[in-house]
Amino acid sequence: MPTAGPTGPASNDEAGEAFVVFTPSGRRGTFPIGTPVLQAARALGVDIDSVCGGRGICGRCQVTLSEGSFTKFQVDSRAANLSEPARNELRYRDKRGLAPGRRLSCSTQLLGNAVIDVPETSQVHRQIVRKRAEVRAIEINPIHKLHYVEVRQPDMHEPSGDFRRLCESLREQWPDWGIADDVSCDLPVLGYLQKALREGDWKVTVCLREGRRVTGVWPGFKGKIYGLAVDIGSTTMSAHLCDLATGEVAASSGVMNPQIRFGEDLMSRVSYVMMNPGGEVELTKVVREAVNHLSSQVAQEAGIDVEDIVDLVFVGNPIMHHLMLGIDPTELGGAPFALAIDTAVNVHAGELGITLHPDARAYGLPCIAGHVGADTAAVILSEGPHQQDEMTLIVDVGTNAEIVLGNRQRLLAASSPTGPAFEGAQITCGQRAAPGAIERVRIDPETLEPRFKVIGVDVWSDEDGFQSEAWRTGVTGICGSGIIEVLAEMVLTGLLKTDGTIDGAMAARTPRIESDGRTFSYRLSPEVVITQTDVRAIQLAKAALYAGAALLMDKLGVETVDRIILAGAFGSHIDTKYAMILGMIPDCRLDKVWSVGNAAGTGARMALLNAEARREIERVVRRVEKVETAVEPKFQEHFIDAMALPHRTAPFPNLSAAVTLPERSDPAEAGSEGDGRRRRRRRGG
Amino acid sequence: MPTAGPTGPASNDEAGEAFVVFTPSGRRGTFPIGTPVLQAARALGVDIDSVCGGRGICGRCQVTLSEGSFTKFQVDSRAANLSEPARNELRYRDKRGLAPGRRLSCSTQLLGNAVIDVPETSQVHRQIVRKRAEVRAIEINPIHKLHYVEVRQPDMHEPSGDFRRLCESLREQWPDWGIADDVSCDLPVLGYLQKALREGDWKVTVCLREGRRVTGVWPGFKGKIYGLAVDIGSTTMSAHLCDLATGEVAASSGVMNPQIRFGEDLMSRVSYVMMNPGGEVELTKVVREAVNHLSSQVAQEAGIDVEDIVDLVFVGNPIMHHLMLGIDPTELGGAPFALAIDTAVNVHAGELGITLHPDARAYGLPCIAGHVGADTAAVILSEGPHQQDEMTLIVDVGTNAEIVLGNRQRLLAASSPTGPAFEGAQITCGQRAAPGAIERVRIDPETLEPRFKVIGVDVWSDEDGFQSEAWRTGVTGICGSGIIEVLAEMVLTGLLKTDGTIDGAMAARTPRIESDGRTFSYRLSPEVVITQTDVRAIQLAKAALYAGAALLMDKLGVETVDRIILAGAFGSHIDTKYAMILGMIPDCRLDKVWSVGNAAGTGARMALLNAEARREIERVVRRVEKVETAVEPKFQEHFIDAMALPHRTAPFPNLSAAVTLPERSDPAEAGSEGDGRRRRRRRGG
Repeated sequence: MPTAGPTGPASNDEAGEAFVVFTPSGRRGTFPIGTPVLQAARALGVDIDSVCGGRGICGRCQVTLSEGSFTKFQVDSRAANLSEPARNELRYRDKRGLAPGRRLSCSTQLLGNAVIDVPETSQVHRQIVRKRAEVRAIEINPIHKLHYVEVRQPDMHEPSGDFRRLCESLREQWPDWGIADDVSCDLPVLGYLQKALREGDWKVTVCLREGRRVTGVWPGFKGKIYGLAVDIGSTTMSAHLCDLATGEVAASSGVMNPQIRFGEDLMSRVSYVMMNPGGEVELTKVVREAVNHLSSQVAQEAGIDVEDIVDLVFVGNPIMHHLMLGIDPTELGGAPFALAIDTAVNVHAGELGITLHPDARAYGLPCIAGHVGADTAAVILSEGPHQQDEMTLIVDVGTNAEIVLGNRQRLLAASSPTGPAFEGAQITCGQRAAPGAIERVRIDPETLEPRFKVIGVDVWSDEDGFQSEAWRTGVTGICGSGIIEVLAEMVLTGLLKTDGTIDGAMAARTPRIESDGRTFSYRLSPEVVITQTDVRAIQLAKAALYAGAALLMDKLGVETVDRIILAGAFGSHIDTKYAMILGMIPDCRLDKVWSVGNAAGTGARMALLNAEARREIERVVRRVEKVETAVEPKFQEHFIDAMALPHRTAPFPNLSAAVTLPERSDPAEAGSEGDGRRRRRRRGG
Repeated sequence: MPTAGPTGPASNDEAGEAFVVFTPSGRRGTFPIGTPVLQAARALGVDIDSVCGGRGICGRCQVTLSEGSFTKFQVDSRAANLSEPARNELRYRDKRGLAPGRRLSCSTQLLGNAVIDVPETSQVHRQIVRKRAEVRAIEINPIHKLHYVEVRQPDMHEPSGDFRRLCESLREQWPDWGIADDVSCDLPVLGYLQKALREGDWKVTVCLREGRRVTGVWPGFKGKIYGLAVDIGSTTMSAHLCDLATGEVAASSGVMNPQIRFGEDLMSRVSYVMMNPGGEVELTKVVREAVNHLSSQVAQEAGIDVEDIVDLVFVGNPIMHHLMLGIDPTELGGAPFALAIDTAVNVHAGELGITLHPDARAYGLPCIAGHVGADTAAVILSEGPHQQDEMTLIVDVGTNAEIVLGNRQRLLAASSPTGPAFEGAQITCGQRAAPGAIERVRIDPETLEPRFKVIGVDVWSDEDGFQSEAWRTGVTGICGSGIIEVLAEMVLTGLLKTDGTIDGAMAARTPRIESDGRTFSYRLSPEVVITQTDVRAIQLAKAALYAGAALLMDKLGVETVDRIILAGAFGSHIDTKYAMILGMIPDCRLDKVWSVGNAAGTGARMALLNAEARREIERVVRRVEKVETAVEPKFQEHFIDAMALPHRTAPFPNLSAAVTLPERSDPAEAGSEGDGRRRRRRRGG
C-alpha cells in the first residue's frame, strides 16, 4: 500500500518503489515496482473508472503518460517507467482501438516514477459541459454502476447461496469502490441469478445501486446501461435516453400527451375524473402507456433493448405527477389544492407499469406545492438559482406560469394563472407552433407595414422567394412567439396604446387598421388579423405573469432582479426583448435574460445522472417558500398595474436604454377591461 | 417532565407534584399534579400500549391502582390520588366494559402519589407463555403498530402534502414512540391516502412498520391488524392467523400442498421442472394459490377481511422456499445443491402474488444450506438450542430428516436422506396417518400376541367394543408411529434380532410368524402384516437418521447429548421411547426427549410477532456450521453401524435403565443387507 507524501518521491526505483503523480487531481504516492497503475490510482482515491475491474476488457480506465522532467514533482517521467503493453491491452487495442499514447491503466505496471494523466473520459465523475457558460456543468455521479465479477463456484463443503458468493466476489474484486457489507437484491434478480451465473461460466456483470443493492445481473461482460429522463407535460411528453456512465444522450423522443382526449387542459382532465368515477385510472393508464411508448422508441433509435434501461426519472406538474403515480388528482382540482405527497418518490418502474429492466427504478422529483410541480423542481435543479448570489427570476411559461425567485439566501415559488393565450389559444388567428404559423414579426415605424417569418419558410415575407416557398406551408395563423412580437412591435410603433387599445386614429396612416365596430384590428396578412380581443387575452396572461413575479419580489423585498430565465418550449422561441416590451417580465439588463428551453428536462437528466443532485433538489425544495397567488390580496393590485404595456408604473430603465419606448398614455386608463370578473379564471394546462 | 429518583418521593402533593411508581417495571418519577398516567408512564419508558394515542378509544392502556401504604417506596397510594373517571373512560366502560379496578391510564390524571400496576395485557411487549416449561415465552415485539392520529388539514398558506402533515401529526401525537424523522410510504398508500383522510374527517389509523414506513391507512379508528405465519411443507401446508398486538392465534388452517400433482416427493417435482421447461412457473403458481386459499380461509374463520392481514412470514424446505419466491429449484436438485439465496428475504406480499393488505410485506426466514431450509431455521428459532448450555439434538423428520446439534457455543446442521418409510410409504401395509391406520402396538412378551390402537377408534383391539367401533373405519393399514411401535415391540420380545432379521425360529412359539420363503413376516392383524422388507426399509431410514446425528456429534466432539427434540408432525405422534429402542436417535435420558410438533410453524409465528426474533435467527443461521452428509465418508461408517437395532456398538445406558433390551446378536452380522447399493437413495420429500 502506498506511502503518500505531499512533495517529491520518498524513494526511487532503485529502492524497488515508484513514485507516481496523477493529474489533474494531483494525488500522489509511492508504490512497489510492478503495481498496476489502476490499483495505485484507486488506492490514492483518484477518480478513475472501470467496469471490468482491471481485466482489460472495458477500456474505461485509459490514461496517458506525461513524459518529461517535472521539477515541480521532482519526477523524471519516462516511457520506460511503465511496463510494455500486456496481452490484455494488445487484445483490447486490436479489437476496440486505442488512441496514440493511451494505455489501459489496469494492464500497465509502474516500473519507475511517473506522472500520469487521467483524461476526463476515464473519470467516473466526469462532467458534461453545458452550452451556456453561466450554468454549472452536470457532474456524472452514477447511482447505478456496472461491475464485472468472477464468482466463486458453489461447494458442498461450504454451502453458501449463489447470491452470497456473488456479494463476496464483488467486495473482494472491487475493494476500493465503497461496496456495502450488506448488499441486498430485489426479487426478480433472484429469479434469474442462477441461470446468469452458469450461462456466464461464473463471470457476470452486476448493476449495483448506490453500492448496496443488486438491481441487475448479466452473464459475462456488459459495458453499458441506460436511464430515461421523462418530462410529462400536459400537452407534450418528452424522453431522453442517457448512457448512465457517460451521461451522453443516446436518443430523444417526444409525443403528444394522450390524456388530451380526456380534456385539452389540466382542469378539464380533473373534471373528467370528477364526472367519471374511475376516470383517474384511465388517465393514469394512458400516460403510462405513453411513457412505455417513448421508452421503446428511444431504445429502438439507440439500438438497445429496453431491458438495458435500469432507471427512470420523471417530472411533471402536480396533476401529471400524481396521475403518473396512480393518485387521483381530484384534490388538486380545487382549494386548498392539497398534494398527496410533496417529497420525492422512489419506486420500482414496474410499480408504475413501466416496462424497462425488470428491476428498474423510478424516481419522481418532489413537488413544491399544489400548483408548482416536480417540473419546477427540475427547473430549479437545472438553473441553480439557489447557488447564485444574483437575484434570479425564473418563469416557466406553459398554460400556467410557474415563477421562482431568489438566490443563495432565499427561494420563493408561485404559480400564476396565465391561461393558454401564450400558446396561441383564445387568439383569433392563433395556432400552435407548426409549419405555416407566423413566428416573427417586424413593423416599419414609418409605413406601419409588417414583415414576418413563417415556420417552415426560410425567408422573410418581404424577401425574394417568399411566395414560392410559402406556397408549400401556407400562412395558416400565428403562434405564441409571433403574437408577442407583433404586439410588441405595435407598441413600439404606436399602433397599440399603453392601456392596450388598438389606436383607431392610426387608420388614417394605414389601411391595415380595420374597424370592428367599437374596436379596431391590425391586419398582418391576408390570412391573419390581430383583434382587440386578442390583445386583451395577451394582456390578461402577461399581467398574471408579471403580477406573480411582482408578488414574489414584494415578498422578498427586492425592487429589481439581476437575472431572468425563461424556461419551457415557449420561452425558447420568444425574443426576450419583446417579452420585456410587453411587460411579461420585469425590467432587467437584456444580456441577463436567457431563454433556456426545456430546463425541466435538463433537471430530470441531472437527477438521472447524479445521486447527489437528487439529495440537493430534495433539500432545496424543502427550503422553497411557497406563495399561493389565489389568496394574496396584493396579487390583484399587481395584476391591475400590470395590464398596461409594459406596466402602469414600473419604469423599465434597462429596457428604455435598449429600445425607444413610446410615451405612455394615461396610466389611470390602463387595465380598464382587465376587471375582476375575467381575471380569476380557472387554471388550466 | 419528570424528575425521577431511585427511592421515595422527591416532593409530595402539597408541592403540586405527584410521585408515581409503576409495577412490575419499578420505574418511578415525579410529575405535576394533573399529568395523565399514560403520559407519565411513557415519559418513564414504562412499556404500556396504546392505539388511540390517549383518546380513550382503544382501551389498550388499562392500569390498576395498587392501594395501600408502600413503605418500600414511601408512597401512600390511595384511590383519591387518581382523578375520577372522565367522560372518555365512562363512555368506554359503557360501550366495551372495564373490569373492576381497571382504569384507562390515558384518561386518568395523577392527583397525588400512587403505585400503579400495568397488567401484562396492557404491555406492548407482552409475552405468550408456551405449553412446555423448558422453552422461552414468545415476546411480542411488533414490527407493525397501529397509531390513531388527527391530521392537520391542508392550508393554502402552507401548502404541504397530505402525507407530510400525516407524518408531522404522527410525531407530534406520539412523541415517546420512537417514530423516525423520515417516515416514508409505499405507492399503494399514496393511492388511497387522500380519500382515507377525508372519509375519516382527518382522523385516521396508521399502520407503521418499524416506526418508519407507513404501510396502511384506515379512516377513523382501527383496533386490530393481523399477520399470517405459513409453513410450506412438501406434503401439507399450514397457516396461523395472528393478532399482531396480542400474538393470539385467531384462526388456523391446513391444506395439502397442491404441488403433489406434479410429483409426490420433492425430487419428482424438481424432475418435473427439469423435464418441462417453465414447469417451475406452474409449481410457483399453485403454491402461491394455496397460500391465498389458506389466507382467505383463516380470515373467514376469524371473521376478518384479508385486507387486515399486513404481514406474512413463510418457512419451508429450500425447494419450497425457492418455489414460493419464484426461483427455479433446478440447482437444488443436484450437487452441489446451490441455493440462490441463503439470507432472509423481505419483499412485498404482492410481489409473491399473495393478496392481503395492498401493502402487506412478506418475510422468508433464511435457508441454511441446499438441504436445510427456512423450516429448520424456524425450528431453531422456536427451540432455541443456541440459548442452551445443554447439548441439544433436534431432529425434524419428514421425508428427509433435518438434524441440528449444538448449544450456546456451536451449532451444526445437516440433512439425512431417510426416505419416506417413516411416513408409511414403501411399507407393505403402510399408509398415511388417517382413520383405520394402526398407530400404536403392544406385543405380549409371553404369548407374542399383539394388541393395537387404530386411528378413529377409541378402544384398543383387545378391549370390549373394538369390533363394533372398528367396523366404521376398518383396519386399513399401519402408519408411521404404528410401524415404529410394532418394530420396537418386536425387538423387545425377541421377534426381531439385533441385525433386523425377523426370527423364523419364533414360528415355533406363535403362528403369527409366517414364512415368505427365505424370510419371515409377523402378522399383526388379518389385514396387516410386517414383512422382512418392511423392517429393512425402516432400518435404512433410521440408520440414515442416526448416522446424521452421530456425524454431527463427531464433528462437535461429543459422545452424548443432553436433550433431544423431535420436531414435525411425525415426531408428535411417536413415543420417544420406541424411537430410541429402534435406535432412530442416540441414547439420552428419556425425560429429556420431547416431541414438540410443528416447531417450524411456531418459529414462523415468532418471526411474525417479534422484529428482534428475525434479527436473531438471521444472526444464528450465519453461525450454523453446515455439514453435507453426502460428502462425509464418516457418514457411511455411522450408517452401517446404525443398521443394527438399536445400534451395533452404542451402549444406550439411559435406555437400558428404562427398558429391558434383549441381548444383542452378533454385531458382525448387523447391517448385512444394509449395503451401499441401497443406502444412497435419492432424496425426496
